[in-house]
Amino acid sequence: MTGHSHSPYLEDIPLDTALQRWWDALAEAGLHGLMPGEIVALDEAVGRVTAAPVWAAVSSPHYHASAMDGYAVHADATRGASEMRPRQLKVGTEAFYVDTGDPIPPHTNAVIMLEDVQLSGPSGAQQIEILAPVAPWQHIRPMGEDMVATELILPANHLLRAQDIGAAAGSGHGTLAVRQKPRVAILPTGTELVKPGAALHPGDIIEYNSLVLGAMVAEWGGAVTRLPMLSDDYEAIREAVLAAAEQHDLVIVNAGSSAGSEDFTARIVAEVGRLLVHGIAIRPGHPVIMGLLRLSDGPLSDETGDRWVPVIGLPGYPVSAAITCELLVKPTVARWLGRPPEERPAVEAILTRKVVSPDGEEEYLRVTVGKVGERLVATPLPGGSGVLMSLVRADGIVRIPRGVTGFEPGATVTVGLLKSPGLLARTIVAIGSHDLTLDLLADELGQRFPGTSLSSANVGSLGGLLALSRGEAHLAGSHLLDEATGEYNLSYIRRILPAVKVVVLGFVQREQGLFLPKGNPKGIRGIADLAREDVAFINRQRGAGTRVLLDYLLRQANIDSSAIQGYHRQEFTHLAVAAAVASGAADCGLGILGAARALDLDFIPIGEEQYDLIIPAGVYEGAALAPLLSIIRDPAFARRVIKLGGYGTPRIGQVLAELGDGPG
Amino acid sequence: MTGHSHSPYLEDIPLDTALQRWWDALAEAGLHGLMPGEIVALDEAVGRVTAAPVWAAVSSPHYHASAMDGYAVHADATRGASEMRPRQLKVGTEAFYVDTGDPIPPHTNAVIMLEDVQLSGPSGAQQIEILAPVAPWQHIRPMGEDMVATELILPANHLLRAQDIGAAAGSGHGTLAVRQKPRVAILPTGTELVKPGAALHPGDIIEYNSLVLGAMVAEWGGAVTRLPMLSDDYEAIREAVLAAAEQHDLVIVNAGSSAGSEDFTARIVAEVGRLLVHGIAIRPGHPVIMGLLRLSDGPLSDETGDRWVPVIGLPGYPVSAAITCELLVKPTVARWLGRPPEERPAVEAILTRKVVSPDGEEEYLRVTVGKVGERLVATPLPGGSGVLMSLVRADGIVRIPRGVTGFEPGATVTVGLLKSPGLLARTIVAIGSHDLTLDLLADELGQRFPGTSLSSANVGSLGGLLALSRGEAHLAGSHLLDEATGEYNLSYIRRILPAVKVVVLGFVQREQGLFLPKGNPKGIRGIADLAREDVAFINRQRGAGTRVLLDYLLRQANIDSSAIQGYHRQEFTHLAVAAAVASGAADCGLGILGAARALDLDFIPIGEEQYDLIIPAGVYEGAALAPLLSIIRDPAFARRVIKLGGYGTPRIGQVLAELGDGPG
Repeated sequence: MTGHSHSPYLEDIPLDTALQRWWDALAEAGLHGLMPGEIVALDEAVGRVTAAPVWAAVSSPHYHASAMDGYAVHADATRGASEMRPRQLKVGTEAFYVDTGDPIPPHTNAVIMLEDVQLSGPSGAQQIEILAPVAPWQHIRPMGEDMVATELILPANHLLRAQDIGAAAGSGHGTLAVRQKPRVAILPTGTELVKPGAALHPGDIIEYNSLVLGAMVAEWGGAVTRLPMLSDDYEAIREAVLAAAEQHDLVIVNAGSSAGSEDFTARIVAEVGRLLVHGIAIRPGHPVIMGLLRLSDGPLSDETGDRWVPVIGLPGYPVSAAITCELLVKPTVARWLGRPPEERPAVEAILTRKVVSPDGEEEYLRVTVGKVGERLVATPLPGGSGVLMSLVRADGIVRIPRGVTGFEPGATVTVGLLKSPGLLARTIVAIGSHDLTLDLLADELGQRFPGTSLSSANVGSLGGLLALSRGEAHLAGSHLLDEATGEYNLSYIRRILPAVKVVVLGFVQREQGLFLPKGNPKGIRGIADLAREDVAFINRQRGAGTRVLLDYLLRQANIDSSAIQGYHRQEFTHLAVAAAVASGAADCGLGILGAARALDLDFIPIGEEQYDLIIPAGVYEGAALAPLLSIIRDPAFARRVIKLGGYGTPRIGQVLAELGDGPG
Repeated sequence: MTGHSHSPYLEDIPLDTALQRWWDALAEAGLHGLMPGEIVALDEAVGRVTAAPVWAAVSSPHYHASAMDGYAVHADATRGASEMRPRQLKVGTEAFYVDTGDPIPPHTNAVIMLEDVQLSGPSGAQQIEILAPVAPWQHIRPMGEDMVATELILPANHLLRAQDIGAAAGSGHGTLAVRQKPRVAILPTGTELVKPGAALHPGDIIEYNSLVLGAMVAEWGGAVTRLPMLSDDYEAIREAVLAAAEQHDLVIVNAGSSAGSEDFTARIVAEVGRLLVHGIAIRPGHPVIMGLLRLSDGPLSDETGDRWVPVIGLPGYPVSAAITCELLVKPTVARWLGRPPEERPAVEAILTRKVVSPDGEEEYLRVTVGKVGERLVATPLPGGSGVLMSLVRADGIVRIPRGVTGFEPGATVTVGLLKSPGLLARTIVAIGSHDLTLDLLADELGQRFPGTSLSSANVGSLGGLLALSRGEAHLAGSHLLDEATGEYNLSYIRRILPAVKVVVLGFVQREQGLFLPKGNPKGIRGIADLAREDVAFINRQRGAGTRVLLDYLLRQANIDSSAIQGYHRQEFTHLAVAAAVASGAADCGLGILGAARALDLDFIPIGEEQYDLIIPAGVYEGAALAPLLSIIRDPAFARRVIKLGGYGTPRIGQVLAELGDGPG
């Protein structure tokens, strides 16, 4: 698995240029056309693409059909009928019982509904009495009402939906000609790879890119073969790539696409075929390889007598791999199927933060999206090409074109959505301090109110209040200690949100303390030890309530922050701090008991702190927040919080204060 | 297959009431909860729903990993390095080669990129020379950067996407717990049913509803069993329904849901369980049955010791069946999976025609949608609950609530889309006269320009010009003969579109004539015979060019239209007129040779006529129409038209006139 580094032949070309080279080379090799057709049963045809137009083989109905249960008659025989002068028609010669769907007997041209006739005659079923004339063709579905033989039912290149299958069947077809699925092989390479679920040793990387890429390609209509992963052995990879090319329409090699010891794909392509592209100016995703392999035997596809098979090398970082797969493989598969690449639903949203993007690169930014007030707001998620969770947590993707160096906060951007637009109005946007109990809340929300979700961006307590002041969030988790009053949050809210009417909702009390490796090898006993030369600390980011607490504790202990090794090294969540200590990257950090327990660390309690939810009054009273409030106030939820350990819930769900005069 | 008639227990209740009864009864029977979980392999989990939250079992990375190919060092060892005073570090003790992804060796805390060091020493690989100090943690991905053990990766009830599978694998999972798919049986009933592809006899109905319903339910996440179709035999159907109930979570019985000889489902449900609903005030779809079957053995699901299984009877007409399935089965399956029912993307569009809807019913209108100028316009498609093509041709569905009696033209309506919103801008809207060559054009368009489509509404030539005058279409096919001048279209355009600048584009010349049954049994020789008492004519609708031609011919022959049997019986397309003659519903009709050939009719030519495309100048010059124009002007397309027979293309693609001064 290789990263974002340089190699002798790494280029930096625009995406459009890369794709143009690709299409040109495919065309030259005779590989730009449509997949051939194959015949499939109707119940296997949904989601496939028609390989030929479907013309009606029969009409539907293929006879004149009664549209009602009743009696078929000739309209002429009913002329002059009225309540005063009812007409009698003999059943079997002048009137014929028909069910809905039955053919109309010869010499009849109208149907009278069952409830509009009286049966009469000795046994009550020999004649019918009618009280009004009927018009010709009343209650008859004429032949061909739905489909007429020879008319176009479905064009070629049509993506088959449920109703299309019905129309094909109804117009006389028992099978359908659909395009063969492009066969796509995915070959994961890297000596360090291990299978999902395997026991892990340092340096092992769980191979899941082939699962992600395979699922994506299958969704786009490809027939995917996930090949066994290979170590970084040039001959073995070369052999596997050539073997895959024999059996597939496209070979995807994952990783091995940049510099370093794993960089084989480009060499194989250059040696066995044509290397078209090596490096595209997109981020994440730069080190991409595109080329054609030349196979010496097999069916020929160009005039030289060679057969060419396209190959794409995708980067190893998961976000890079997924995004470049979508940019390159999706249009290729779509072209072979004769379909436009399926586009994500797009919305316009207000960007909540400044974004800086390199001038020369096209960037794909992962954002959360929610509706706050009347505006859709998009908040960029942190994390580089190695942070798959940025793609999991994202509600959408913002494309920043080459030549655009970023956006200011408040800019309107177009977001390609990863969730259905209808769900955006049911997304509760939390921006502020992180707490494990927010994860619980998110889980309960999804369970109890399907379709509702909690989208949290962790920017620390102060950042959350600032987001509320800009109308970018529904709520902010906050645990800001006012050193002067000993109160939490209130003075900060008064300062940062003077014009906004907000509700301070009690949430949890939590134990803050020092994280230490198991067994406390450095014998740390309290805050004073943080200044020791042999102690490496890991801090939280500016604006985090935990950092405010640390500064308070340092001042109380009369310790200068410059005396602390690692004061400026910062993480954004409790768990990240705990992970730093667990891995030995730091000797000590400050955070909540829950995170220490989760990673099996020693913990020296320093005190309880209050973690509240700050909610604009308008949001608090609105319908969008009601599901969340009902969970917070359910004792079952409080019990689940307590079970985590390190939490108290004495004031959960209580309105602790209402502040501000402005609009909520 | 039964229609829209009445029965002893048919109700007429609002949809909401029916659904409330349904949820209440399911809850009472203990059937309202979530499906239990099952463990599946990761590569089978996409599209499934998590049955439990997924917490990270391991961190990712689970060690501090190099983010670059280069040398791992301790930052302290680089202090003070500069170009003037390079620092040398010994490889193997002070600097360690690492590939991207490798763990950082103990006692190192930064990585220097390969290209930033010089190798030196006797063999060139014993030490590295560096020219600048590095910061601690440079080019290192700290443990837990992506996921930290114990953090929430995915909530319960989450619909799994490709990236989610990766995150589950990356956080240490080798399998996933997902909800079992609700097992849904579909039982088609009706003596008249035959399998798709079978030879047809009058009265046979091709059974395709189970294909359509099965594909829909599978898409919503159900595990579908399509049962063999059954004749209308009460005992056999009862036995099959009860057997299906033993093995499934929901039984759908298709047809047999209204009055008539096929009406068994309601009786079975009433006898073996609880009939909850029989008849919902929706259109199409009225005769729906909802109930619970009580099974005497098997696992128990309530305190009475009975097991209940829900059953839904859906109407036989295909549009009714599909729409009621969506309204009733989709939310049921979604609830069992813990998901919100997937909503269609919605857009606002301008309705082009008046729509009348019954006050007491909720109606689901099928519409075509296209972007004309800056507006999205929606045009209702003709056809009742038996016209499946209205659902195939529809771009979207407009819901008309109870209590709303319709819309005026120009009203803004919300359209639930059946195609992706991005494709609407690539939909060319043709409203006007019908011609077979428009089907060819639609097919070529889809083949040559994937994603582009031609959506035609057939309202006759005059209707098309009126649609253009209201800005509702991109083009109108027209063949309106001016009896005074012998010219086609021009005088009509001057009258109807005085203020619109339009281009008249030559398209096809076509042969009009009389359609007669094979062998011409009534010996019809020309227009004069239409007035014969024994000849039943079938006409085209008012405004159709063919009707204008008929009236012209009648006046020339001095025949009064009232003398013609069937002058007022009208069809909307050439093929529908041909079908009426082919089936014996009429003895004669007027139309084009292509339609007569398609249905193997005799044809008496009456003359050639000109069929042009009328296009507002603004549209003609715009990008949206370019694909269509390129096809029209391609000689290969003209050859395909000629092959149909009855067509000439002497002026295809030529601009015959430019009229009007107004905006195009």
